[in-house]
Amino acid sequence: MMETSDAAGKQTNDRSGQMGPSIVLVEPQLGENIGFSARAMGNFGLRDLRLVAPRDGWPNNKALAAAAVAEPIVAEARVFDTLEAALADCNYVVATTARPREMVKPVFSPETAASTLRTRTVAGVRCAVMFGGERNGLNNDAIVLADAILTAPVDPSFASLSLPQAVLLFSYEWLKSGNPEALGRVTAFDGPVREGLATPGTVPASRAALFGLFDHLEGALDSAGFLRPPEKRPAMVRSIRNMFHRMECTEQDVRTWRGIVSAFTRRATGSKG
Amino acid sequence: MMETSDAAGKQTNDRSGQMGPSIVLVEPQLGENIGFSARAMGNFGLRDLRLVAPRDGWPNNKALAAAAVAEPIVAEARVFDTLEAALADCNYVVATTARPREMVKPVFSPETAASTLRTRTVAGVRCAVMFGGERNGLNNDAIVLADAILTAPVDPSFASLSLPQAVLLFSYEWLKSGNPEALGRVTAFDGPVREGLATPGTVPASRAALFGLFDHLEGALDSAGFLRPPEKRPAMVRSIRNMFHRMECTEQDVRTWRGIVSAFTRRATGSKG
Repeated sequence: MMETSDAAGKQTNDRSGQMGPSIVLVEPQLGENIGFSARAMGNFGLRDLRLVAPRDGWPNNKALAAAAVAEPIVAEARVFDTLEAALADCNYVVATTARPREMVKPVFSPETAASTLRTRTVAGVRCAVMFGGERNGLNNDAIVLADAILTAPVDPSFASLSLPQAVLLFSYEWLKSGNPEALGRVTAFDGPVREGLATPGTVPASRAALFGLFDHLEGALDSAGFLRPPEKRPAMVRSIRNMFHRMECTEQDVRTWRGIVSAFTRRATGSKG
Repeated sequence: MMETSDAAGKQTNDRSGQMGPSIVLVEPQLGENIGFSARAMGNFGLRDLRLVAPRDGWPNNKALAAAAVAEPIVAEARVFDTLEAALADCNYVVATTARPREMVKPVFSPETAASTLRTRTVAGVRCAVMFGGERNGLNNDAIVLADAILTAPVDPSFASLSLPQAVLLFSYEWLKSGNPEALGRVTAFDGPVREGLATPGTVPASRAALFGLFDHLEGALDSAGFLRPPEKRPAMVRSIRNMFHRMECTEQDVRTWRGIVSAFTRRATGSKG
């Protein structure tokens, strides 16, 4: 678990008493853009910034300078070597992309993403939104780790949202989602999102638990000769992982799947012996 | 009248056939911020940028560089000596401020401002939104020229919206106001609000396909000894089926799962023989 009580203690809770979604920047390039993103977060009540392999290393003085009053958010940002580590303690993850990808996932506008994440956050689900680097955005291996996709509406003849602009739009909608009356949102929440997935007796699976399941299942499928030919393996793995993310597994669900994979594996082993 | 037919001709009309509101930056300081503001405008379909007495003169190479693909908006921006001249051809003007001022004027959120300006624009009213310089924002003499005030909601402990951030929020809400359906703002669904599950190249699975998969999988799990003891079998089967329903399988997904079950089954059979 990457989330320590100390790190959690740095968070500012919003009025619901919940910690807002983490903002995860994946391989960001320019320090200025990290700083501008932090400033966008701070303006709208988000505090937990995570960086995956920032190009220019860390700490980064340009990031601190660009953050202005959001400097503490940059100073307390956590840096991870891998996206999997950055997401390990998260239960529900949204990936930001400029355009639809060849993935079977729900697609949200910033507004819908914010209200969805608000509902989940209030229910105690740890949420994160990830954003790709300036040049190419998130690659497919990153997107596949997400439960849903966030795509901001833009003028199709432009479609040039910068990294801090994308962070700003989500953060703004996040704050709006928590305080609809004050912001002129005439559309009351009459049942937009699921009121939280009912998970009696269990809790949403952590990303770490899911990643463990993926290793287990994919190893078994390799042994069973399913993930062939090799050139098709990456797409097959992505497709299977996407299905698991859509499932929104609980911890119990992950145990069930581990049991299923073990049963199939044991059966093969047992019949050999 | 500052608006010449030539200047109007440069505008990109949106789908309503109307020119969007002009963005008026009053005594902006940094060229970068002018460029970032132009990029924000372009992303959301606004084209008419007006500058009142930019501190560093005009043209400004930093503004052009920061604009990226929005360079034409910067190149075509019009510069005025006075705010009065910049607003001369406008019929309805909104002033952006960080906090309420001692003015008796309507106060709008970005969302409400956008829908108000959309309604007026469609009715043929020339609208503008003005933003103050980086240091102090608009002074009272500028605000008094406006019909209404726009104040973006921010975390009160921060309240540090930069000039391009403020332009971005209005521009984003402007685009949203013109196209609500496409952006998930119609929250009438009584299930999850998804802007739609993207299912490239495939279609949602029929129930018949799913039931066939259930038979196949549960048969294999019975053979593997997983669904035991018998009194727990019904609950285990329900739990697994629930996961598949949450997955919202496509036809291709069902084929993938059939393949997985077959691979595990073949493996066991093969090793027996």
